[in-house]
Amino acid sequence: MAKGLLLVISAPSGGGKGTILKELFAQEENLRLSVSATTRQPRPGEENGKQYFFLSREEFETKIQTGQMLEYAEYVGNYYGTPREPVERWMDQGRDVVLEIEVKGGAQVKKLMPECVSIFILPPSMQVLEKRLRGRGTEEEATIQQRLAKAREEIPHAKEYDYVVFNDRLEDAVSDLRAIIHGEKLKFSRNTDSIERVLEHA
Amino acid sequence: MAKGLLLVISAPSGGGKGTILKELFAQEENLRLSVSATTRQPRPGEENGKQYFFLSREEFETKIQTGQMLEYAEYVGNYYGTPREPVERWMDQGRDVVLEIEVKGGAQVKKLMPECVSIFILPPSMQVLEKRLRGRGTEEEATIQQRLAKAREEIPHAKEYDYVVFNDRLEDAVSDLRAIIHGEKLKFSRNTDSIERVLEHA
Repeated sequence: MAKGLLLVISAPSGGGKGTILKELFAQEENLRLSVSATTRQPRPGEENGKQYFFLSREEFETKIQTGQMLEYAEYVGNYYGTPREPVERWMDQGRDVVLEIEVKGGAQVKKLMPECVSIFILPPSMQVLEKRLRGRGTEEEATIQQRLAKAREEIPHAKEYDYVVFNDRLEDAVSDLRAIIHGEKLKFSRNTDSIERVLEHA
Repeated sequence: MAKGLLLVISAPSGGGKGTILKELFAQEENLRLSVSATTRQPRPGEENGKQYFFLSREEFETKIQTGQMLEYAEYVGNYYGTPREPVERWMDQGRDVVLEIEVKGGAQVKKLMPECVSIFILPPSMQVLEKRLRGRGTEEEATIQQRLAKAREEIPHAKEYDYVVFNDRLEDAVSDLRAIIHGEKLKFSRNTDSIERVLEHA
Protein backbone atom coordinates (compact mmCIF):
# COMPACT_ATOMS: atom_id res chain seq x y z
CA MET A 1 0.00 0.00 0.00
CA ALA A 2 1.26 3.46 -0.86
CA LYS A 3 2.11 5.74 2.05
CA GLY A 4 -0.40 8.54 2.63
CA LEU A 5 0.33 12.22 2.16
CA LEU A 6 0.95 14.78 4.86
CA LEU A 7 -1.03 17.89 3.93
CA VAL A 8 -0.03 21.07 5.72
CA ILE A 9 -2.80 23.61 5.31
CA SER A 10 -2.61 27.23 6.43
CA ALA A 11 -4.88 30.22 5.95
CA PRO A 12 -5.43 33.58 7.56
CA SER A 13 -8.21 33.55 10.14
CA GLY A 14 -11.53 34.39 8.53
CA GLY A 15 -10.30 32.91 5.25
CA GLY A 16 -13.00 30.27 5.34
CA LYS A 17 -10.58 27.39 5.90
CA GLY A 18 -12.98 25.64 8.26
CA THR A 19 -15.79 25.46 5.70
CA ILE A 20 -13.44 24.27 2.96
CA LEU A 21 -11.93 21.52 5.11
CA LYS A 22 -15.34 20.36 6.27
CA GLU A 23 -16.43 19.91 2.66
CA LEU A 24 -13.09 18.31 1.70
CA PHE A 25 -13.44 15.75 4.49
CA ALA A 26 -17.00 15.03 3.35
CA GLN A 27 -15.74 14.24 -0.15
CA GLU A 28 -12.45 12.46 0.63
CA GLU A 29 -12.94 9.57 3.01
CA ASN A 30 -9.23 8.74 3.07
CA LEU A 31 -8.40 11.93 5.02
CA ARG A 32 -7.63 12.15 8.71
CA LEU A 33 -7.32 15.35 10.74
CA SER A 34 -4.25 15.50 12.94
CA VAL A 35 -4.89 15.98 16.65
CA SER A 36 -2.69 18.46 18.52
CA ALA A 37 -1.09 17.94 21.88
CA THR A 38 -1.20 20.50 24.69
CA THR A 39 -0.09 20.93 28.28
CA ARG A 40 -3.15 22.95 29.23
CA GLN A 41 -5.81 21.38 31.41
CA PRO A 42 -8.69 19.58 29.67
CA ARG A 43 -11.93 21.53 29.80
CA PRO A 44 -15.21 19.86 30.75
CA GLY A 45 -16.26 17.51 27.96
CA GLU A 46 -12.83 17.35 26.29
CA GLU A 47 -11.44 13.87 25.75
CA ASN A 48 -7.81 12.86 25.50
CA GLY A 49 -6.98 12.09 21.85
CA LYS A 50 -10.11 13.81 20.55
CA GLN A 51 -9.84 17.61 20.84
CA TYR A 52 -6.24 17.29 22.09
CA PHE A 53 -3.73 14.86 23.46
CA PHE A 54 -3.29 16.15 27.01
CA LEU A 55 0.31 15.86 28.17
CA SER A 56 2.24 16.96 31.22
CA ARG A 57 4.97 19.57 30.74
CA GLU A 58 7.60 16.87 31.23
CA GLU A 59 6.03 14.56 28.67
CA PHE A 60 5.77 17.40 26.16
CA GLU A 61 9.38 18.52 26.65
CA THR A 62 10.64 14.95 26.30
CA LYS A 63 8.81 14.69 22.98
CA ILE A 64 10.42 17.96 21.82
CA GLN A 65 13.89 16.76 22.78
CA THR A 66 13.49 13.38 21.08
CA GLY A 67 12.17 14.85 17.82
CA GLN A 68 8.66 13.53 18.39
CA MET A 69 7.01 16.92 17.86
CA LEU A 70 6.55 17.94 14.22
CA GLU A 71 6.06 21.52 15.42
CA TYR A 72 5.22 23.29 18.65
CA ALA A 73 4.84 26.69 20.25
CA GLU A 74 4.33 28.07 23.73
CA TYR A 75 1.24 30.22 24.22
CA VAL A 76 0.12 31.83 27.49
CA GLY A 77 2.27 29.47 29.50
CA ASN A 78 1.19 26.26 27.77
CA TYR A 79 2.70 24.18 25.00
CA TYR A 80 0.73 23.32 21.87
CA GLY A 81 2.09 21.09 19.12
CA THR A 82 1.73 18.20 16.70
CA PRO A 83 2.95 14.78 17.88
CA ARG A 84 4.71 12.93 15.09
CA GLU A 85 3.74 9.37 15.97
CA PRO A 86 -0.02 9.38 15.21
CA VAL A 87 0.63 11.27 11.95
CA GLU A 88 3.25 8.74 10.82
CA ARG A 89 1.03 5.82 11.83
CA TRP A 90 -1.88 7.06 9.74
CA MET A 91 0.40 7.75 6.77
CA ASP A 92 1.84 4.22 7.02
CA GLN A 93 -1.75 2.94 6.90
CA GLY A 94 -2.18 4.82 3.62
CA ARG A 95 -4.26 7.66 5.08
CA ASP A 96 -3.71 11.25 4.03
CA VAL A 97 -3.27 13.40 7.11
CA VAL A 98 -4.28 17.05 7.30
CA LEU A 99 -2.40 19.43 9.58
CA GLU A 100 -4.33 22.66 10.04
CA ILE A 101 -1.64 24.96 11.22
CA GLU A 102 -0.28 28.52 11.44
CA VAL A 103 2.57 29.66 9.21
CA LYS A 104 5.28 29.30 11.87
CA GLY A 105 4.25 25.70 12.57
CA GLY A 106 3.99 25.04 8.83
CA ALA A 107 7.62 26.05 8.36
CA GLN A 108 8.73 23.72 11.18
CA VAL A 109 6.88 20.76 9.65
CA LYS A 110 8.31 21.42 6.16
CA LYS A 111 11.79 21.29 7.67
CA LEU A 112 11.22 17.99 9.50
CA MET A 113 9.15 16.33 6.75
CA PRO A 114 10.09 17.95 3.43
CA GLU A 115 7.94 15.43 1.56
CA CYS A 116 4.82 17.04 3.05
CA VAL A 117 2.47 18.90 0.70
CA SER A 118 1.94 22.45 1.90
CA ILE A 119 -1.03 24.51 0.80
CA PHE A 120 -1.85 28.12 1.61
CA ILE A 121 -5.49 29.14 1.27
CA LEU A 122 -5.74 32.77 0.17
CA PRO A 123 -8.75 35.06 0.33
CA PRO A 124 -9.56 36.56 -3.09
CA SER A 125 -8.72 40.01 -1.68
CA MET A 126 -8.38 41.86 1.62
CA GLN A 127 -11.77 43.48 1.01
CA VAL A 128 -13.45 40.10 0.76
CA LEU A 129 -11.64 38.94 3.88
CA GLU A 130 -12.81 42.04 5.76
CA LYS A 131 -16.35 41.57 4.53
CA ARG A 132 -16.34 37.96 5.70
CA LEU A 133 -14.98 38.89 9.12
CA ARG A 134 -17.67 41.57 9.50
CA GLY A 135 -20.31 39.23 8.11
CA ARG A 136 -19.94 36.94 11.09
CA GLY A 137 -21.47 39.77 13.07
CA THR A 138 -19.98 38.42 16.26
CA GLU A 139 -16.77 40.33 16.56
CA GLU A 140 -15.84 43.76 17.80
CA GLU A 141 -14.14 46.29 15.60
CA ALA A 142 -10.84 45.96 17.47
CA THR A 143 -10.83 42.17 16.95
CA ILE A 144 -11.58 42.58 13.26
CA GLN A 145 -8.72 45.05 12.88
CA GLN A 146 -6.39 42.64 14.72
CA ARG A 147 -7.35 39.76 12.45
CA LEU A 148 -6.84 41.86 9.33
CA ALA A 149 -3.43 42.99 10.54
CA LYS A 150 -2.49 39.37 11.28
CA ALA A 151 -3.69 38.27 7.83
CA ARG A 152 -1.50 40.95 6.21
CA GLU A 153 1.44 39.51 8.12
CA GLU A 154 0.64 35.90 7.28
CA ILE A 155 -0.27 36.15 3.58
CA PRO A 156 3.30 36.89 2.37
CA HIS A 157 4.28 33.50 3.84
CA ALA A 158 2.26 31.86 1.07
CA LYS A 159 5.53 31.91 -0.88
CA GLU A 160 6.95 29.25 1.46
CA TYR A 161 4.13 26.87 0.49
CA ASP A 162 4.00 24.41 -2.42
CA TYR A 163 0.52 25.41 -3.55
CA VAL A 164 -1.91 28.31 -3.28
CA VAL A 165 -5.66 27.88 -3.41
CA PHE A 166 -7.99 30.86 -3.66
CA ASN A 167 -11.02 30.70 -1.45
CA ASP A 168 -13.41 32.34 -3.86
CA ARG A 169 -16.14 29.80 -4.59
CA LEU A 170 -16.27 26.94 -2.08
CA GLU A 171 -16.69 24.20 -4.68
CA ASP A 172 -13.71 25.46 -6.70
CA ALA A 173 -11.49 25.57 -3.64
CA VAL A 174 -12.46 22.02 -2.69
CA SER A 175 -11.93 20.79 -6.24
CA ASP A 176 -8.50 22.50 -6.24
CA LEU A 177 -7.51 20.71 -3.04
CA ARG A 178 -8.69 17.37 -4.41
CA ALA A 179 -6.67 17.86 -7.62
CA ILE A 180 -3.56 18.67 -5.57
CA ILE A 181 -4.00 15.49 -3.52
CA HIS A 182 -4.71 13.37 -6.63
CA GLY A 183 -1.75 14.82 -8.55
CA GLU A 184 0.70 14.52 -5.66
CA LYS A 185 -0.01 10.80 -5.37
CA LEU A 186 1.22 10.40 -8.97
CA LYS A 187 4.63 12.00 -8.36
CA PHE A 188 7.40 9.63 -9.35
CA SER A 189 9.10 10.39 -6.02
CA ARG A 190 6.10 8.79 -4.27
CA ASN A 191 6.09 5.80 -6.65
CA THR A 192 9.73 4.85 -6.83
CA ASP A 193 8.79 1.17 -6.95
CA SER A 194 6.68 1.64 -10.09
CA ILE A 195 9.46 0.76 -12.54
CA GLU A 196 10.21 -2.50 -10.78
CA ARG A 197 6.52 -3.29 -10.48
CA VAL A 198 6.17 -3.09 -14.25
CA LEU A 199 9.42 -4.80 -15.17
CA GLU A 200 9.44 -7.62 -12.65
CA HIS A 201 6.58 -9.23 -14.57
CA ALA A 202 8.72 -9.07 -17.74
CA MET B 1 -3.57 35.65 -17.89
CA ALA B 2 -1.50 32.86 -16.39
CA LYS B 3 1.09 31.25 -18.62
CA GLY B 4 0.17 27.78 -19.87
CA LEU B 5 1.96 24.59 -18.91
CA LEU B 6 4.39 22.62 -21.01
CA LEU B 7 3.49 18.94 -20.64
CA VAL B 8 6.16 16.48 -21.72
CA ILE B 9 4.55 13.08 -22.14
CA SER B 10 6.42 9.87 -22.86
CA ALA B 11 5.38 6.24 -23.01
CA PRO B 12 6.70 3.02 -24.48
CA SER B 13 5.23 2.24 -27.88
CA GLY B 14 2.12 0.13 -27.50
CA GLY B 15 1.44 1.72 -24.12
CA GLY B 16 -1.81 3.20 -25.36
CA LYS B 17 -0.56 6.79 -25.21
CA GLY B 18 -2.43 7.69 -28.40
CA THR B 19 -5.83 6.65 -27.02
CA ILE B 20 -5.22 8.43 -23.72
CA LEU B 21 -4.15 11.68 -25.38
CA LYS B 22 -7.10 11.61 -27.76
CA GLU B 23 -9.48 11.37 -24.81
CA LEU B 24 -7.54 14.00 -22.85
CA PHE B 25 -7.77 16.45 -25.74
CA ALA B 26 -11.50 15.74 -26.02
CA GLN B 27 -11.95 16.69 -22.35
CA GLU B 28 -9.51 19.61 -22.04
CA GLU B 29 -10.10 22.27 -24.64
CA ASN B 30 -7.21 24.39 -23.43
CA LEU B 31 -4.64 21.87 -24.70
CA ARG B 32 -2.56 22.22 -27.85
CA LEU B 33 -0.43 19.48 -29.41
CA SER B 34 3.07 20.61 -30.34
CA VAL B 35 4.01 20.19 -34.01
CA SER B 36 7.47 18.83 -34.77
CA ALA B 37 9.87 20.14 -37.37
CA THR B 38 11.71 17.90 -39.86
CA THR B 39 14.10 18.17 -42.76
CA ARG B 40 12.54 15.24 -44.59
CA GLN B 41 10.46 15.88 -47.70
CA PRO B 42 6.72 16.38 -47.23
CA ARG B 43 4.67 13.38 -48.37
CA PRO B 44 1.59 13.82 -50.54
CA GLY B 45 -1.17 15.44 -48.50
CA GLU B 46 1.13 16.70 -45.74
CA GLU B 47 0.86 20.42 -44.98
CA ASN B 48 3.54 22.67 -43.51
CA GLY B 49 2.66 23.42 -39.88
CA LYS B 50 0.13 20.61 -39.67
CA GLN B 51 1.83 17.18 -39.58
CA TYR B 52 5.26 18.88 -39.45
CA PHE B 53 7.04 22.14 -40.01
CA PHE B 54 9.15 21.34 -43.08
CA LEU B 55 12.55 23.01 -42.87
CA SER B 56 15.72 22.91 -44.94
CA ARG B 57 18.83 21.46 -43.34
CA GLU B 58 20.29 24.97 -43.05
CA GLU B 59 17.18 26.35 -41.39
CA PHE B 60 17.08 23.44 -38.96
CA GLU B 61 20.77 23.76 -38.06
CA THR B 62 20.43 27.51 -37.51
CA LYS B 63 17.58 26.84 -35.10
CA ILE B 64 19.72 24.32 -33.22
CA GLN B 65 22.62 26.77 -32.97
CA THR B 66 20.43 29.64 -31.76
CA GLY B 67 18.69 27.57 -29.10
CA GLN B 68 15.39 27.54 -30.96
CA MET B 69 15.02 23.77 -30.81
CA LEU B 70 13.70 22.39 -27.51
CA GLU B 71 15.01 18.97 -28.54
CA TYR B 72 16.08 17.24 -31.72
CA ALA B 73 17.57 14.06 -33.11
CA GLU B 74 18.88 12.84 -36.43
CA TYR B 75 17.20 9.75 -37.84
CA VAL B 76 17.98 8.07 -41.17
CA GLY B 77 19.68 11.20 -42.46
CA ASN B 78 16.96 13.65 -41.46
CA TYR B 79 16.51 15.95 -38.48
CA TYR B 80 13.38 15.80 -36.34
CA GLY B 81 12.76 18.18 -33.46
CA THR B 82 10.53 20.57 -31.54
CA PRO B 83 10.74 24.27 -32.43
CA ARG B 84 10.59 26.43 -29.33
CA GLU B 85 8.77 29.45 -30.75
CA PRO B 86 5.27 28.01 -31.39
CA VAL B 87 5.35 26.27 -27.99
CA GLU B 88 6.27 29.49 -26.17
CA ARG B 89 3.68 31.48 -28.12
CA TRP B 90 0.87 29.09 -27.13
CA MET B 91 2.04 29.09 -23.49
CA ASP B 92 2.06 32.91 -23.46
CA GLN B 93 -1.52 32.79 -24.72
CA GLY B 94 -2.38 30.64 -21.68
CA ARG B 95 -2.62 27.36 -23.60
CA ASP B 96 -1.21 24.14 -22.16
CA VAL B 97 1.06 22.53 -24.72
CA VAL B 98 1.59 18.77 -25.00
CA LEU B 99 4.89 17.40 -26.27
CA GLU B 100 4.56 13.74 -27.15
CA ILE B 101 8.14 12.67 -27.13
CA GLU B 102 10.69 9.87 -26.60
CA VAL B 103 12.75 9.69 -23.44
CA LYS B 104 15.90 11.22 -24.97
CA GLY B 105 13.96 14.22 -26.24
CA GLY B 106 12.15 14.50 -22.91
CA ALA B 107 15.48 14.83 -21.09
CA GLN B 108 16.58 17.60 -23.48
CA VAL B 109 13.37 19.57 -22.93
CA LYS B 110 13.60 19.23 -19.13
CA LYS B 111 17.08 20.74 -19.31
CA LEU B 112 16.04 23.72 -21.44
CA MET B 113 12.67 24.31 -19.74
CA PRO B 114 12.90 22.92 -16.20
CA GLU B 115 9.45 24.35 -15.41
CA CYS B 116 7.89 21.81 -17.78
CA VAL B 117 5.71 19.06 -16.31
CA SER B 118 6.96 15.65 -17.36
CA ILE B 119 4.77 12.58 -17.24
CA PHE B 120 5.66 8.99 -18.04
CA ILE B 121 2.80 6.68 -18.96
CA LEU B 122 3.50 3.15 -17.76
CA PRO B 123 1.80 -0.06 -18.82
CA PRO B 124 0.42 -2.00 -15.83
CA SER B 125 2.90 -4.80 -16.60
CA MET B 126 5.05 -6.15 -19.40
CA GLN B 127 2.50 -8.94 -19.97
CA VAL B 128 -0.27 -6.42 -20.55
CA LEU B 129 1.99 -4.45 -22.90
CA GLU B 130 2.79 -7.63 -24.85
CA LYS B 131 -0.89 -8.57 -25.01
CA ARG B 132 -1.75 -5.13 -26.34
CA LEU B 133 0.97 -5.24 -28.97
CA ARG B 134 -0.25 -8.67 -30.11
CA GLY B 135 -3.87 -7.57 -29.91
CA ARG B 136 -3.30 -5.09 -32.70
CA GLY B 137 -2.89 -8.15 -34.91
CA THR B 138 -0.94 -6.10 -37.43
CA GLU B 139 2.61 -6.69 -36.42
CA GLU B 140 5.08 -9.45 -37.02
CA GLU B 141 6.69 -11.36 -34.19
CA ALA B 142 10.08 -9.70 -34.78
CA THR B 143 8.53 -6.22 -34.54
CA ILE B 144 6.70 -7.15 -31.34
CA GLN B 145 9.93 -8.42 -29.80
CA GLN B 146 11.74 -5.22 -30.85
CA ARG B 147 9.04 -3.04 -29.26
CA LEU B 148 9.12 -5.04 -26.04
CA ALA B 149 12.91 -4.78 -25.88
CA LYS B 150 12.67 -1.02 -26.47
CA ALA B 151 10.00 -0.68 -23.76
CA ARG B 152 12.27 -2.48 -21.29
CA GLU B 153 14.97 0.07 -22.12
CA GLU B 154 12.65 3.07 -21.87
CA ILE B 155 10.65 2.23 -18.73
CA PRO B 156 13.56 2.77 -16.29
CA HIS B 157 13.71 6.38 -17.55
CA ALA B 158 10.37 6.97 -15.81
CA LYS B 159 12.50 7.98 -12.82
CA GLU B 160 13.59 11.13 -14.69
CA TYR B 161 9.95 12.25 -14.95
CA ASP B 162 7.92 14.29 -12.47
CA TYR B 163 4.88 12.00 -12.58
CA VAL B 164 3.94 8.44 -13.50
CA VAL B 165 0.52 7.46 -14.75
CA PHE B 166 -0.50 3.84 -15.12
CA ASN B 167 -2.37 3.03 -18.28
CA ASP B 168 -4.69 0.47 -16.79
CA ARG B 169 -8.24 1.79 -17.26
CA LEU B 170 -8.48 4.57 -19.85
CA GLU B 171 -10.76 6.79 -17.77
CA ASP B 172 -8.47 6.55 -14.73
CA ALA B 173 -5.41 7.47 -16.78
CA VAL B 174 -7.21 10.49 -18.27
CA SER B 175 -8.48 11.57 -14.86
CA ASP B 176 -4.90 11.22 -13.50
CA LEU B 177 -3.55 13.48 -16.27
CA ARG B 178 -6.27 16.06 -15.65
CA ALA B 179 -5.51 16.11 -11.91
CA ILE B 180 -1.81 16.63 -12.64
CA ILE B 181 -2.61 19.58 -14.93
CA HIS B 182 -5.10 21.06 -12.44
CA GLY B 183 -2.72 20.66 -9.50
CA GLU B 184 0.33 22.04 -11.33
CA LYS B 185 -1.54 25.26 -12.10
CA LEU B 186 -1.92 25.81 -8.35
CA LYS B 187 1.82 25.62 -7.58
CA PHE B 188 2.98 28.76 -5.83
CA SER B 189 5.92 28.92 -8.28
CA ARG B 190 3.38 29.42 -11.09
CA ASN B 191 1.43 32.03 -9.07
CA THR B 192 4.16 34.24 -7.68
CA ASP B 193 1.95 37.31 -8.17
CA SER B 194 -0.81 35.87 -5.95
CA ILE B 195 0.38 37.52 -2.73
CA GLU B 196 0.48 40.98 -4.32
CA ARG B 197 -2.90 40.37 -5.98
CA VAL B 198 -4.46 39.77 -2.58
CA LEU B 199 -2.61 42.49 -0.66
CA GLU B 200 -2.75 45.31 -3.19
CA HIS B 201 -6.47 45.58 -2.52
CA ALA B 202 -5.70 45.96 1.18
